[in-house]
Amino acid sequence: MATKYVYFFGGGSAEGKADMKLLLGGKGANLAEMTNAGLPVPPGFTITTEACDHYYRNNQQWPAGLAEEITATITHLEEVNRKRFGDPVDPLLVSVRSGAAVSMPGMMDTVLNLGINDEVVQALIQKSNNPRWAWDCYRRFIDMFGDVVMGVDHEHFEEAIHAVKEAAGVKNDNELTAEQLHDVVNRYKAIYRQHTGRMFPTDPREQMDLAVNAVFGSWNSDRAIKYRQINKISGLAGTAVNICTMAFGNLGETSGTGVCFTRDPSTGENVFYGEYLINAQGEDVVAGIRTPEPISALANQMPAVYAQLCEIRQKMEQHYADMQDMEFTVEDGVLYILQTRSGKRTGVASVQIAVDMVGEGLIDEATAVSRVAPDQLAQLLLARFDEGDLKAAQKAGRMLGHGLAAGPGAAVGRAVFTADEAEAWVARGEKVILVRIETSPEDVGGMYAAEGILTSRGGLTSHAAVVARQWGKCCVAGSSDIVIDYSSKSFTNGKVTVREGDLVAVNGWSGDYFAGDIKVVPSPVVRGILEGDDAAKSDPLFQVYAKLDSWIEANRKLGVRTNADSPVDAQRARCFGAEGIGLCRTEHMFFEGERIISVRKMILADDLAGREAALAELLPMQRGDFEGIFEAMAGLPVTVRLLDPPLHEFVPHEVENQAEMAREMGISPEAVKAKVDSLHEFNPMLGHRGCRLGVTYPEIYDMQVRAIMEAACNCQLKGIDARPEIMIPLVGFKGELDFLEQRTRQICTAVQAEKGVQVEYLVGTMIEVPRAALVADEIAEAAEFFSFGTNDLTQMGLGFSRDDAGKFIPAYLDGKIFEDDPFVTLDRKGIGKLVKMGIDLGRATRDKLKVGICGEHGGDPATVEFCHQVGMNYVSCSPFRVPVARLAAAQASIKFDNPEAAEKGKEMGG
Amino acid sequence: MATKYVYFFGGGSAEGKADMKLLLGGKGANLAEMTNAGLPVPPGFTITTEACDHYYRNNQQWPAGLAEEITATITHLEEVNRKRFGDPVDPLLVSVRSGAAVSMPGMMDTVLNLGINDEVVQALIQKSNNPRWAWDCYRRFIDMFGDVVMGVDHEHFEEAIHAVKEAAGVKNDNELTAEQLHDVVNRYKAIYRQHTGRMFPTDPREQMDLAVNAVFGSWNSDRAIKYRQINKISGLAGTAVNICTMAFGNLGETSGTGVCFTRDPSTGENVFYGEYLINAQGEDVVAGIRTPEPISALANQMPAVYAQLCEIRQKMEQHYADMQDMEFTVEDGVLYILQTRSGKRTGVASVQIAVDMVGEGLIDEATAVSRVAPDQLAQLLLARFDEGDLKAAQKAGRMLGHGLAAGPGAAVGRAVFTADEAEAWVARGEKVILVRIETSPEDVGGMYAAEGILTSRGGLTSHAAVVARQWGKCCVAGSSDIVIDYSSKSFTNGKVTVREGDLVAVNGWSGDYFAGDIKVVPSPVVRGILEGDDAAKSDPLFQVYAKLDSWIEANRKLGVRTNADSPVDAQRARCFGAEGIGLCRTEHMFFEGERIISVRKMILADDLAGREAALAELLPMQRGDFEGIFEAMAGLPVTVRLLDPPLHEFVPHEVENQAEMAREMGISPEAVKAKVDSLHEFNPMLGHRGCRLGVTYPEIYDMQVRAIMEAACNCQLKGIDARPEIMIPLVGFKGELDFLEQRTRQICTAVQAEKGVQVEYLVGTMIEVPRAALVADEIAEAAEFFSFGTNDLTQMGLGFSRDDAGKFIPAYLDGKIFEDDPFVTLDRKGIGKLVKMGIDLGRATRDKLKVGICGEHGGDPATVEFCHQVGMNYVSCSPFRVPVARLAAAQASIKFDNPEAAEKGKEMGG
Repeated sequence: MATKYVYFFGGGSAEGKADMKLLLGGKGANLAEMTNAGLPVPPGFTITTEACDHYYRNNQQWPAGLAEEITATITHLEEVNRKRFGDPVDPLLVSVRSGAAVSMPGMMDTVLNLGINDEVVQALIQKSNNPRWAWDCYRRFIDMFGDVVMGVDHEHFEEAIHAVKEAAGVKNDNELTAEQLHDVVNRYKAIYRQHTGRMFPTDPREQMDLAVNAVFGSWNSDRAIKYRQINKISGLAGTAVNICTMAFGNLGETSGTGVCFTRDPSTGENVFYGEYLINAQGEDVVAGIRTPEPISALANQMPAVYAQLCEIRQKMEQHYADMQDMEFTVEDGVLYILQTRSGKRTGVASVQIAVDMVGEGLIDEATAVSRVAPDQLAQLLLARFDEGDLKAAQKAGRMLGHGLAAGPGAAVGRAVFTADEAEAWVARGEKVILVRIETSPEDVGGMYAAEGILTSRGGLTSHAAVVARQWGKCCVAGSSDIVIDYSSKSFTNGKVTVREGDLVAVNGWSGDYFAGDIKVVPSPVVRGILEGDDAAKSDPLFQVYAKLDSWIEANRKLGVRTNADSPVDAQRARCFGAEGIGLCRTEHMFFEGERIISVRKMILADDLAGREAALAELLPMQRGDFEGIFEAMAGLPVTVRLLDPPLHEFVPHEVENQAEMAREMGISPEAVKAKVDSLHEFNPMLGHRGCRLGVTYPEIYDMQVRAIMEAACNCQLKGIDARPEIMIPLVGFKGELDFLEQRTRQICTAVQAEKGVQVEYLVGTMIEVPRAALVADEIAEAAEFFSFGTNDLTQMGLGFSRDDAGKFIPAYLDGKIFEDDPFVTLDRKGIGKLVKMGIDLGRATRDKLKVGICGEHGGDPATVEFCHQVGMNYVSCSPFRVPVARLAAAQASIKFDNPEAAEKGKEMGG
Repeated sequence: MATKYVYFFGGGSAEGKADMKLLLGGKGANLAEMTNAGLPVPPGFTITTEACDHYYRNNQQWPAGLAEEITATITHLEEVNRKRFGDPVDPLLVSVRSGAAVSMPGMMDTVLNLGINDEVVQALIQKSNNPRWAWDCYRRFIDMFGDVVMGVDHEHFEEAIHAVKEAAGVKNDNELTAEQLHDVVNRYKAIYRQHTGRMFPTDPREQMDLAVNAVFGSWNSDRAIKYRQINKISGLAGTAVNICTMAFGNLGETSGTGVCFTRDPSTGENVFYGEYLINAQGEDVVAGIRTPEPISALANQMPAVYAQLCEIRQKMEQHYADMQDMEFTVEDGVLYILQTRSGKRTGVASVQIAVDMVGEGLIDEATAVSRVAPDQLAQLLLARFDEGDLKAAQKAGRMLGHGLAAGPGAAVGRAVFTADEAEAWVARGEKVILVRIETSPEDVGGMYAAEGILTSRGGLTSHAAVVARQWGKCCVAGSSDIVIDYSSKSFTNGKVTVREGDLVAVNGWSGDYFAGDIKVVPSPVVRGILEGDDAAKSDPLFQVYAKLDSWIEANRKLGVRTNADSPVDAQRARCFGAEGIGLCRTEHMFFEGERIISVRKMILADDLAGREAALAELLPMQRGDFEGIFEAMAGLPVTVRLLDPPLHEFVPHEVENQAEMAREMGISPEAVKAKVDSLHEFNPMLGHRGCRLGVTYPEIYDMQVRAIMEAACNCQLKGIDARPEIMIPLVGFKGELDFLEQRTRQICTAVQAEKGVQVEYLVGTMIEVPRAALVADEIAEAAEFFSFGTNDLTQMGLGFSRDDAGKFIPAYLDGKIFEDDPFVTLDRKGIGKLVKMGIDLGRATRDKLKVGICGEHGGDPATVEFCHQVGMNYVSCSPFRVPVARLAAAQASIKFDNPEAAEKGKEMGG
């Protein structure tokens, strides 16, 4: 049987259904589902993603039979609509839209009003008795078709209509007469011909075929690729094409179009939310050119339509068990639902909705946990402005204006006016606020780079707003209080002019924005967790967070520890739910206060006695450090990594600093320089560090082990349950570990005997050299635990120096050589294979081997899932990532133990 | 049944035999074998290596039953000898010697004359009627026992005898009277007591037990460990202990002792070779204190003994089918063979003997191939002095003296006088000649580091000579023409004084040595191979080499290619038998002549057009390079690696050079500096290089691919069979290779079309990033061949920067963390696992995948064996290592296909 590439919907039934998303795309599956559910969907059909895949795999050729299938389906569509393509009396017009399995708002090109030609426009005039509307449809169609399908720059059409408006002495498009619009159509056709070298196609079927190809082509446009990269979307065959009977929102004052959310996508509140424009088409709302009305206003303007919408809202939430984002059009008083999909939402909204829906019985707790993306949870930990500082700024008259609070958060940065500038400033270490009249998909790079976004046009569903919320960026949108001038790189509110580089503070919670700096304070959730005061704890946000948190804990299996080097960090992470320290680095301790002098004495010493004398000075300080950390983590394991960096990191490289060190040490600057030079390394990453220092200067590790064990004994004597896990870094050969493990145990035994107290402790190693993973069976003979140091394992396994790879990683992401930056998300296929091999070999030797990860990947949700899958005992990450890692761990458990809840938790595409 | 730890030999039969080498050590097995063969071996017994192993595994305790077994065996020994330990009339004296399964000459401690005490010495006086001899035995025994068993420094005993000699007014030990020697014995006993705090033990059994422990202890002495490291000996349980009835070579003028080889160990000539001393013990010969007589002189001095020795010589060669090294003693006219073992020999001798023995029907060709160690073959390629220059030096009176030609070769270096200095000078890049009165095992480090060795004392079997030959070092030994003064760091021949740092030229072929420099020329084998002139080809050495070479070829399966970047190197390697180029680096070509200017223009260019213009200048030059190489390798594959090093290697880092570059480029020095700074990398090893350059600047590889393919087409048009294999370096991700492979093929196709000629070519990749080995199944989809770049694979897989690891690798070798320097011999367990994984995964995708190795490991025999084992198609190494690699490849084939010949090929221990 030939593959079916075309699926019809309309007339009360559809060939597709909701679970055919991969084949029909989110939009197509939804249109089918909505049709089957009896919703007022304009009839149409969907060309499958398989057709798109075939197109790319076969040198941009359609599969055999597709053209015929479309012909047959068009005939059916004409029958259902009782209209025909190109009909001189009652012509059928359609929209052509893309729709992949995963939602990519604003990224894919759309063509509306397809089917118009010089004959059809006359039929429309006849039928509607509205020549202005008919010519406007035609000129819009030529514009979109020319731009999207044939690559004629939209600017050319804009110039033409601008010229006509100027000649007519009018300002807005809708002030043009039918004749003037007819003139515009003629000019557009001339532009089309000039830039394409061909006549504008008059055959609706030819129009459609070209549009379908354009949709296929848009799948691999640069901006679509970039969006997929940023959003980590992969594994899809392509986009489907949805061909849908046009419904016109611009037939006059009884028509309109809008977008609505079944709940507030910003706060998650269970209220009907959205906006609409009378006498407009859908893209007018999304593009933010006119500022729309709130949906509640529709209750007065079109009460029947509003009531029908409200009913659909309830139906949709029951049906999908998720917050929906719907596009609708009212054509001459008749409501059509053009599409519905799971609504993008802020992190706050995501948690609020998930928790509320459990309360409402719509979903269960595991589904709620699966529904909150870990990075959305991170948004709950977003900053706000300090109240006092904010008031002071207001009092001082520093407020510049007010707009829509489109993305919560508080951000301060230097004003920049293009996406490219934003990326460039950030690349040189600045924080920026991207200020734009409106944003477009071309701006996503700069938007991503910016701390916050400020626009002077567009609503809560404008491009800027949708994208910002998804990323948890602070955003104020559509603020008409200011005039932005790109040419002078400035904006003004009439009194104050802000130029490129000036500090701007944007309050994404309120919509206000200010000149100058305002102090930023953490979220109430963070305050509730860290400070525990009642005010913060009674904050509703803290309370929904706490509820979700309890469900996370009920589902989580993988342990979560933190990377912390100080009692303060340890305490903080413990508040966030860390179950121990997975990585306590000891090198930072070497820099504090006067210690660096002792460290440098040790480095300068020519013999063992000299090094031991200097180390003796360090011992009590290190012991004190560990006592504080053990106390903060009482009852929980603390993995202490022995000294890791090369010694040259502890000596100065600048002449003046060397002179100062020489004075401190009482030796000549030449002697200091000679020592520093002798420590120089060509590739410090692969040099004399980690356990290699331990092997060549065992006295350093001896001191550290003694400090750890004395601290643990002292704690034990004070009744504090200290649980040290001593970790030897950079092991590649069993002999290294054997040598150092034996010394470690000897010292630990001696110290316990001296102190007369027993301490439970472990000795283990980091697995960060590829060889260690390859011979993990041997290494596990001497190691009681493994902690995968995936930063170094990635650097060595990929041969990428993190400090240098910035020169080629962007090109690798652009060229799709890899999908994720391997320093952000663990490279499963390569490094992950090493990790899995290391665990399996290690446990073959020692079946109770404790295994964790302490690279920065430990806070990355995709990596956390991997760690769960390969059977690690815990991940370890920075204190503020602990809640994120815990959620990711719970989601991984649910994904593998309760796949149905996980599937329900995933957002529906559209 | 209890383990048997003691094996008796003597009285015509033995409990052990030759194939019990692992248990009895080489010496013990040989003594048993010799006894069984009816040779005149002094009776005795061997304590097994298992006893030694037990000793080390059990806190230095003997196994249960060992003491009783020894007691019983002593009783048997006393019966066979008809002498008893400690007997006041006819006492038994024994020697105690170590003996591991592999020969380690001079490394293990020996105690002679064990069994003497104050009563026994009287019995010896009575029995021998030679009180001088008896007291001399006693004092030697106390010296050795004190030194070897109890750790009393030999110097103390030397001082004591020196004082007695001085008081007596005599120069040599043998001038002392019995009374004076009695005095020496008393002084020795006092020294012993002073340094050990105990009386000298009088019970022979107590003496023996302590000596056995000392032998066990010597197994792990620093020098034994160092010897095993240098000689790559591992996997042995320990040493056996051989207790043997003493035969005295110092009972007067009818006694003597000597060492003989069944063939000349220096040239391999089939002549009886050796030397002896009348009225001496064995260690007098080995230590080189007296210069001995050549063995031929024995025919006159002791004709019967000489005849018996000659008979034994024949018997031994027939028996062992190898050249033997025998120690003998004549006690009052009676010959005893103390030991025999495969004789150490020079590379020249090794090849000569192997070839001769095939001619004599003693061994087959495969055995001959297996018998020549690859590094010995390398000695055949050793340098000689230029004849003219040598004659000029002689004419100019620069000859300083003459000694024994103890190790062939020609070496020039700066004179140094201690092993430590030798190591220190070499560490800072100097070549040295180590000048010593005599050498000892403590000197091996410096001997290894030196270009050549010159001693003023000792014979052809002295420590210096034996060790130098084994390593293929140039050595002149026992030259009494000079006086060496350690305190002033100089030596003089009475006319000329050579001081530390002065140049010395040593001719290890003739025994002459000179002041100043002499031009060094390659061996006749190398001349025969490379120049092919009849004089060189008629050299006997060339002829035996050629014979062995034909047998190598008959047995070899693994291909051998060379690493060569120029037509000259390629041609050379081809002469040595290379079957293609495994690695042609292109970066060296970038530095030649004016090219670097174009390269720098390319680097400085800000845009693609600028880079392309500079590359266009390079294209014809690169094309010319490749044409020359293809011509030299006509008909053989040439693997060309595209540009690998980071761009900063092509720009100057010194201010003055940057200024020069600025002038050449016509830009400011600041601009040059800014570019150089922007190219700086923290870890260049892991930076922007290899295919990462290809991905970011594809135009560079495009030019190189075009140059390769244009050159290949041009050759083809000239009738030269060019076979390019284009290699993309540093691939870690399939996407990298996909991108570059596609471009490569497009260009190759285009060039062939332009030139109208077909060229067979391959596109492949280096596997040098660990990830590439892990995902080799994917990589093989796009690669037609893999070449393992084990230098980088080792650096990344072990996390060792070769430029920096010198700071800890020596400590790792000392601490036995690894046995071999992983940059010399491939780390099989770790990196080898990655290599095997890479091959297996790659061939799972593409079963005909061509696989080779092009790291420097390709010339290391142990690594070559590994490459054969894992099924590589070829190894590639530097031109001069090609013969070595070919031999190693043949040996690997024989080892796995013909294990019997391989086993026979292995040297017998002793």
